Amino acid sequence: MSQNEPLKITLIGAGTIGLSFVALHFQQAVSQGAPSLELTIHDSRPDIEEYILNTLPAYTNAEITKKVYVTGGYDVTLDDVLGHARSNTLIVDNNLESAVSKASIIQEQGPENAAFKTALWPKVEQHCPPDALLWSSTSGISASTQSTDMRDRSRLIVAHPWNPPHVMPLIEVVPSPYTSPKVILRTMEFWKSMGKVPVLLQKEITGFVGNRLAFALLREAIHLVNEGVASVEDIDSVMENSLGPRWAVSGPFKSYQAGGGEGGIEAFFKNIGGTVQACWDDIGKVNTGEGWEKNIYYQTKEAYGVVDTKGRDAKIRKVLGAAQSSEQ
Amino acid sequence: MSQNEPLKITLIGAGTIGLSFVALHFQQAVSQGAPSLELTIHDSRPDIEEYILNTLPAYTNAEITKKVYVTGGYDVTLDDVLGHARSNTLIVDNNLESAVSKASIIQEQGPENAAFKTALWPKVEQHCPPDALLWSSTSGISASTQSTDMRDRSRLIVAHPWNPPHVMPLIEVVPSPYTSPKVILRTMEFWKSMGKVPVLLQKEITGFVGNRLAFALLREAIHLVNEGVASVEDIDSVMENSLGPRWAVSGPFKSYQAGGGEGGIEAFFKNIGGTVQACWDDIGKVNTGEGWEKNIYYQTKEAYGVVDTKGRDAKIRKVLGAAQSSEQ
Repeated sequence: MSQNEPLKITLIGAGTIGLSFVALHFQQAVSQGAPSLELTIHDSRPDIEEYILNTLPAYTNAEITKKVYVTGGYDVTLDDVLGHARSNTLIVDNNLESAVSKASIIQEQGPENAAFKTALWPKVEQHCPPDALLWSSTSGISASTQSTDMRDRSRLIVAHPWNPPHVMPLIEVVPSPYTSPKVILRTMEFWKSMGKVPVLLQKEITGFVGNRLAFALLREAIHLVNEGVASVEDIDSVMENSLGPRWAVSGPFKSYQAGGGEGGIEAFFKNIGGTVQACWDDIGKVNTGEGWEKNIYYQTKEAYGVVDTKGRDAKIRKVLGAAQSSEQ
Repeated sequence: MSQNEPLKITLIGAGTIGLSFVALHFQQAVSQGAPSLELTIHDSRPDIEEYILNTLPAYTNAEITKKVYVTGGYDVTLDDVLGHARSNTLIVDNNLESAVSKASIIQEQGPENAAFKTALWPKVEQHCPPDALLWSSTSGISASTQSTDMRDRSRLIVAHPWNPPHVMPLIEVVPSPYTSPKVILRTMEFWKSMGKVPVLLQKEITGFVGNRLAFALLREAIHLVNEGVASVEDIDSVMENSLGPRWAVSGPFKSYQAGGGEGGIEAFFKNIGGTVQACWDDIGKVNTGEGWEKNIYYQTKEAYGVVDTKGRDAKIRKVLGAAQSSEQ
């Protein structure tokens, strides 16, 4: 793509995730060497323009947001804040057909509802350019399900961001068995070029990888509160002062490889595999609706109230910078 | 304790954890306002002095290690590197009786073996000062078990560090039902004064909290590799680019409180409790010895070889600094 040709992305759905993608794509657009951006937002809410203007500042830095103006047409531009002679455009278009007609990337983060998504893609497919990439940000509805009624199922792929996507590097890329290798490759390459870390799953599976790992730990955490071993705040304190910082730098397998010294993870299991198995034998098996909710919700609300996510995200950015630093 | 009176700590066992405690206690001793330190190491290995001299530099900074000299007596001192008119002493004493006779804190990190620990404490108890704090660094053998043959079981408590303790803030403090409230309180206060984050468990439980949470996640991680969903490296990449940095800043309950917006964790479960339960219904139930080990060990070794723990620990320090920063 030449530098003169803008990158045309259409976002379907501008909730929390959608707005974060707006911030992400504009952050990228104003960076050195990036193509200019023509970003179209399609959302059914009637006050979408006002909503974006009011909400976007919470997602990105002032230099970008002060130059973003929203309109229902093509006539207002976002000047490149780095002073390049390029302009970036934010468009709101409540007509699906025209919203997708020129896009090279279409990202869906609408209602988390299989019927909605399955009905959407045939319409998108009919009106978008033939080589446009079609991505769903879903955290749980597979591309297999979503593509059921498409003419060409090979075009759809899940690109599940980690919230908030303008901060977190992870994108879980989950093809269906129908997705073409070319779509997979182009999707991986795009996210790498954005400075993100796309991880390609080899199979569709409930919850993908990140949430499955998180929910496995959450289940044990709820069990420990339930059993009166530790409070909600104590569990969080344990995580923030041990596993969190460790896993920010090296994931569990690399950590146990280190934990076993020169013998690696094999030596680790040889030494304390018995304790690992004892914990697995005793693992918590709570389920939703079993009555633990009231205590967990109460303790969590008492401890934190409404969380300052802007402050949290600023810290997460710093943590990511620290984990990626090469100097010692 | 007056500034003229040194803090007397005896470490029983100088393996990986013991050496890390040596580094930690000397780091603290050279900080502003801390009492001077008389640190005694009791370990059965014959080459203990050479071992300490060779290994300690990997644990701490050069300014401290270059002033640490090891001897089998009381005649060599560690000058205070901050220039105070105090001196810190490192003593190696292979006689248990004299090693514990003057200590105000005795920390055990010997073999992870119930018979060893149960036999140790009655001897320690017989020869140490009556108000000395008795701590085990065990990751799995309860104070109830370890104190079985003690005259006064109220004295023993588990103070389980997170590896490596000179870097990680967490100390899991786990009393037995016999442990006195005064011992609990003094233990918690000591670790807070060291700038650590002691978390008091309300009950003895297999694996305590941190390892139970880690092993619950590890079990699901192994399951996902087993099922061919993702590789060992991909799982680690997911953790390093999503959950790790998030949990370094806010633990799981605080994260889901944020994830639910103004409705908090209750709204989170209302929205996606179905997906959480679906993941729990489908959760991995691998056990040791079921044959997954070969592939996991192979992939992990291929990916990482021998991990550079010094580089990792330097990054973890930075991550902790970033997570604790107050500015945004």
